[in-house]
Amino acid sequence: MLPEPILDLAHLGHMELLTPKPDESLRFFIDVMGMTESGRQGNSVYLRGWDDYERHTLKLTAAKLPGMGHFAFRARSQQALERRVAALKSSGFDLGWTDGDVGHGPAFLCQDPDGHKVELYFETEWYDPPPELRPALKNQAQRFPGRGVNVRRLDHLNCLAVDIRANREFFENYLGFRLTEQIVLNDGTEAAMWMACSNKSYDFAYTQDHTGTKGRFHHVTYALDSRGSVLRAADIFMENGVFIESGPHKHAVQQTFFLYVYEPGGNRVEVANAGARLILAPDWKTIRWTEKERKRGQAWGMKTTESFHTYGTPPVEMPAHAPLVEEEEDTSLVVTNLDSWF
Amino acid sequence: MLPEPILDLAHLGHMELLTPKPDESLRFFIDVMGMTESGRQGNSVYLRGWDDYERHTLKLTAAKLPGMGHFAFRARSQQALERRVAALKSSGFDLGWTDGDVGHGPAFLCQDPDGHKVELYFETEWYDPPPELRPALKNQAQRFPGRGVNVRRLDHLNCLAVDIRANREFFENYLGFRLTEQIVLNDGTEAAMWMACSNKSYDFAYTQDHTGTKGRFHHVTYALDSRGSVLRAADIFMENGVFIESGPHKHAVQQTFFLYVYEPGGNRVEVANAGARLILAPDWKTIRWTEKERKRGQAWGMKTTESFHTYGTPPVEMPAHAPLVEEEEDTSLVVTNLDSWF
Amino acid sequence: MLPEPILDLAHLGHMELLTPKPDESLRFFIDVMGMTESGRQGNSVYLRGWDDYERHTLKLTAAKLPGMGHFAFRARSQQALERRVAALKSSGFDLGWTDGDVGHGPAFLCQDPDGHKVELYFETEWYDPPPELRPALKNQAQRFPGRGVNVRRLDHLNCLAVDIRANREFFENYLGFRLTEQIVLNDGTEAAMWMACSNKSYDFAYTQDHTGTKGRFHHVTYALDSRGSVLRAADIFMENGVFIESGPHKHAVQQTFFLYVYEPGGNRVEVANAGARLILAPDWKTIRWTEKERKRGQAWGMKTTESFHTYGTPPVEMPAHAPLVEEEEDTSLVVTNLDSWF
Amino acid sequence: MLPEPILDLAHLGHMELLTPKPDESLRFFIDVMGMTESGRQGNSVYLRGWDDYERHTLKLTAAKLPGMGHFAFRARSQQALERRVAALKSSGFDLGWTDGDVGHGPAFLCQDPDGHKVELYFETEWYDPPPELRPALKNQAQRFPGRGVNVRRLDHLNCLAVDIRANREFFENYLGFRLTEQIVLNDGTEAAMWMACSNKSYDFAYTQDHTGTKGRFHHVTYALDSRGSVLRAADIFMENGVFIESGPHKHAVQQTFFLYVYEPGGNRVEVANAGARLILAPDWKTIRWTEKERKRGQAWGMKTTESFHTYGTPPVEMPAHAPLVEEEEDTSLVVTNLDSWF
Repeated sequence: MLPEPILDLAHLGHMELLTPKPDESLRFFIDVMGMTESGRQGNSVYLRGWDDYERHTLKLTAAKLPGMGHFAFRARSQQALERRVAALKSSGFDLGWTDGDVGHGPAFLCQDPDGHKVELYFETEWYDPPPELRPALKNQAQRFPGRGVNVRRLDHLNCLAVDIRANREFFENYLGFRLTEQIVLNDGTEAAMWMACSNKSYDFAYTQDHTGTKGRFHHVTYALDSRGSVLRAADIFMENGVFIESGPHKHAVQQTFFLYVYEPGGNRVEVANAGARLILAPDWKTIRWTEKERKRGQAWGMKTTESFHTYGTPPVEMPAHAPLVEEEEDTSLVVTNLDSWF
Repeated sequence: MLPEPILDLAHLGHMELLTPKPDESLRFFIDVMGMTESGRQGNSVYLRGWDDYERHTLKLTAAKLPGMGHFAFRARSQQALERRVAALKSSGFDLGWTDGDVGHGPAFLCQDPDGHKVELYFETEWYDPPPELRPALKNQAQRFPGRGVNVRRLDHLNCLAVDIRANREFFENYLGFRLTEQIVLNDGTEAAMWMACSNKSYDFAYTQDHTGTKGRFHHVTYALDSRGSVLRAADIFMENGVFIESGPHKHAVQQTFFLYVYEPGGNRVEVANAGARLILAPDWKTIRWTEKERKRGQAWGMKTTESFHTYGTPPVEMPAHAPLVEEEEDTSLVVTNLDSWF
Repeated sequence: MLPEPILDLAHLGHMELLTPKPDESLRFFIDVMGMTESGRQGNSVYLRGWDDYERHTLKLTAAKLPGMGHFAFRARSQQALERRVAALKSSGFDLGWTDGDVGHGPAFLCQDPDGHKVELYFETEWYDPPPELRPALKNQAQRFPGRGVNVRRLDHLNCLAVDIRANREFFENYLGFRLTEQIVLNDGTEAAMWMACSNKSYDFAYTQDHTGTKGRFHHVTYALDSRGSVLRAADIFMENGVFIESGPHKHAVQQTFFLYVYEPGGNRVEVANAGARLILAPDWKTIRWTEKERKRGQAWGMKTTESFHTYGTPPVEMPAHAPLVEEEEDTSLVVTNLDSWF
Repeated sequence: MLPEPILDLAHLGHMELLTPKPDESLRFFIDVMGMTESGRQGNSVYLRGWDDYERHTLKLTAAKLPGMGHFAFRARSQQALERRVAALKSSGFDLGWTDGDVGHGPAFLCQDPDGHKVELYFETEWYDPPPELRPALKNQAQRFPGRGVNVRRLDHLNCLAVDIRANREFFENYLGFRLTEQIVLNDGTEAAMWMACSNKSYDFAYTQDHTGTKGRFHHVTYALDSRGSVLRAADIFMENGVFIESGPHKHAVQQTFFLYVYEPGGNRVEVANAGARLILAPDWKTIRWTEKERKRGQAWGMKTTESFHTYGTPPVEMPAHAPLVEEEEDTSLVVTNLDSWF
């Protein structure tokens, strides 16, 4: 009889995005993505999609360089959180408890083998909309905004890492994630991994950083309701002058219908179709993609844009079309005062 | 600290639908719904949607009257199954082990307070498509059929019951389901319940049987990818002369985008939009709808068709448009030989 | 050899909507419908959808009662306009030339047998967007707004009339419209007509006014890109507290995927799926629907809401759910000063 | 006062596609595209989409090489046809009358400056579906098939030509087409043209043949209802092993949401979203795209596949992925007997 799976984590809760252009990034997330501001503190603004049940899912923080500050998983219960903390303690990956943040209670901080900061928490603040944002149906967190892309909820994020296998083992062994799909090269090197703790086919992904730099970020994804909504998002990004890197198209891996853009701070942001594909099998058998299979391109044959394989934040090498290239001079400015955000 | 939730069941696995018109029902599920036959045994044909990972999700059985034979949940592990069996033993709801069926291993049978048969199992057969049904992408169970409505996967089912509260307590206490939404009348009577063991907002629902008859069935639902696909399904049902009872429209409860038809055997079948709305919160707070709120009709104001509240299978009283009224004479025929199915 | 069809009119150009609640109506069309203001004069505000090529397609005019002021067709050329004027002169339907209005040149005014005012014009002003509304693609009139329902362009309008046959003959003989569909009752009475001068399957419709009142208005329709967009519009109307009278659903007649709401001034407004169905045949054979066929309800079986057959503007009798019932007292206010519109 | 536009042609009626693999091509159009056979004669099979009102819109003819046999426009009336014939007589482009074909009456044949055969006709046969293909709604030509891609109707076609300007003048002067969009290079060379006789934004297009070969064909396009339907078509093409050359994506020119594949005979076939964008202005101002603007790629930034600019039928040079390369040997077979088609 197989050992039972660990079921202690419920879902990706939020992530912190670092931006050297906080004003422009904030306008992007509110006006173009259609998100709602739900708090401010220090150098950070807290944001949410209309179907996110917690107070926020995105913490946007002014910083010298773009990148990811941390990401966080909500545990299924206080007991489940404590089991994960017990497993991490003295593992070398544990960093210790924090007092929490706007929107959630005490969190246990750890870091993966690549140095990304990962937070675990259970106590959270359910979003309580102000009167003008009350929804018509009480089973919905917030009124549908009718603004820009109208992103629904945080879906997943993707980090770059030097050693995918080491990271896979960390997330499997210490946090109980299931590996739903992966890419394994001819020489046995693991090149990418997609992992889940929920019925979504992945809650996060890691892909190999070819520059050998640790701790970088690839993209964060917000979900839309249908593939048609992703196409409409492309129209809206185009109208607003947002750089579209790739898509809309369908990944062979996970069959995600994707659209990648760069937000003004230089971070890659994805909108994707949510939820039609679920992993209901509790004993899902990992899908392994070979080097040869990956060379076929995306599901319908499109070749993947070069920058998709090289560009991450903070940037190490720049793709030709990345807005950061032209805007390099501005990135030396550190915005330390949120009063200047509007 | 709250007690931890029970997480032993993974998802609704399959259901058995009884039909007095097996030939016509089979043609409906294959030609109109776009399902695939994956086995036959005795008086039953086994069917599946293209994204169902198990061998079948629908067992269609010839019978004197329409209705539901049993439904089944897959456990998350063998250990989880045994925990549920231990809880049920001597509860009065337990009926005992069966040897399994086409497509799955030993199952523990029980019955809810209303007498519906519920099966629990873990061992299952993953669908292995024949060459002509192999998908282009290996993370998909079967080729997209391109036939009729092209239903994706089993989504949920809905039973009628005389005492909703008793059934809620049974599914909460013995099987670990979470109550995501419910209707409670002014006098405190529970009139309907929606319950989940996965991240779907419900894996099954029960609504009150106003006729006072026990053990009846309301509908089974297959999922489609988008609301636009549900509209196309309505066109296809219309072209094929299938009786549309209600929809396409949006329920206020659960926000399901629904379309209800009657299959030739007289059972209500739904196609609905899948997955955009997920319940990620591990401690979801039950949404309670009042009598007054229900009187507002569906989300966009449509009044619910009368027969939706009265018609179930086996039928007790017939709505005006139900095909069974005209076809009453045929229901006395028991089809005992599957050779006649084509 | 059949006589050649008259091809002098190109399309429905604009219509004037009267509202006793000009502020609320204007906010509805801009914030909820996603239209753009493109001019003001006297008691009127001029509005447009993002794909309308002319300066405006809706003239919203403050008035004591809701209803329709006039509607206008653009001729295919100056010569074509003059041919229609020559035909109308001394017909008894002619009212004479006007100097034009904001956005278009001289117009010839006439009235149909029911007394609705109809304007013909050729000279028009092409919309010239301000910098912030310039589209990314130069073959588009205006930037996609990303606000509310985002209606695309004026599609058609629908008047009520006492004598449909007399109106049909007027539009066929004097203006050259083709009758694409109609409803003819058992006693030979024409009950409704759909007429076209373009490849759209209708540019306007008339339905019988059972109250025997002349000159009333049924609805104006703006087009969306897909049926999925109409569903999203329903969500947005619901969130904004807009009264939904009927839909989304599919008409059997013309197969329009419809959604009817009441704007704050009390006029019925439709959003519908545009353009997939075109009438390309130059000699299209009129589809005649019988009384019996109409009793089947809409395409997918929904029964038509009673108020859809009785309510028009100005109102004569009120349906139970019409907002005007509750708001009757306010309609005695004539808003004469546009300064109060915001 | 400007001269009046010529309005003698109503729409693209049908086209003849030549295929060296008639069996495979026929299976593609019926099983994958979802078209219906409506006649056979000689080496040809006649096919139609479910919303085509004429008996056929595609004549598939067995031939040694792939390519286009002829295409045909239906006139608005017999008188309009005779006016066009009178204009063409003695023009040097006229080839004379034919007796007609399956589905239509006498046709006047001419050729454009590049040598493509163009047919004009008025008398036509309206499609009369057999009982099993009767639609539920009588304003529809045929039952929705529920098979494969379910293409709706013929939308447009695209030829290659050596001298675009000469062809533009031919279609403007002799046939009365309006130029809705064009590409003009820096040196003044016209590189592509999109022309319309209906309210569709184009009924056909011509693009420059860089090989200097006359009379070649680029693609034929069938319309679908929405962009979401085009995405589903991509899934279905992928599942059926059909080579996808480009898309789904949005052209900047005409904003067509496109998907290009190669049918088994080697001809490029497109499915595209229909009708949302209409040209209602009778005096539409031609959109001129410059060389620089074209270099930006498609609407959302995708670079156009090289083969899209070079591959046409009959082939002169082959793109790497064209199935004809591998299957070159078979193209020498002339299929002369339709009995072998199945």
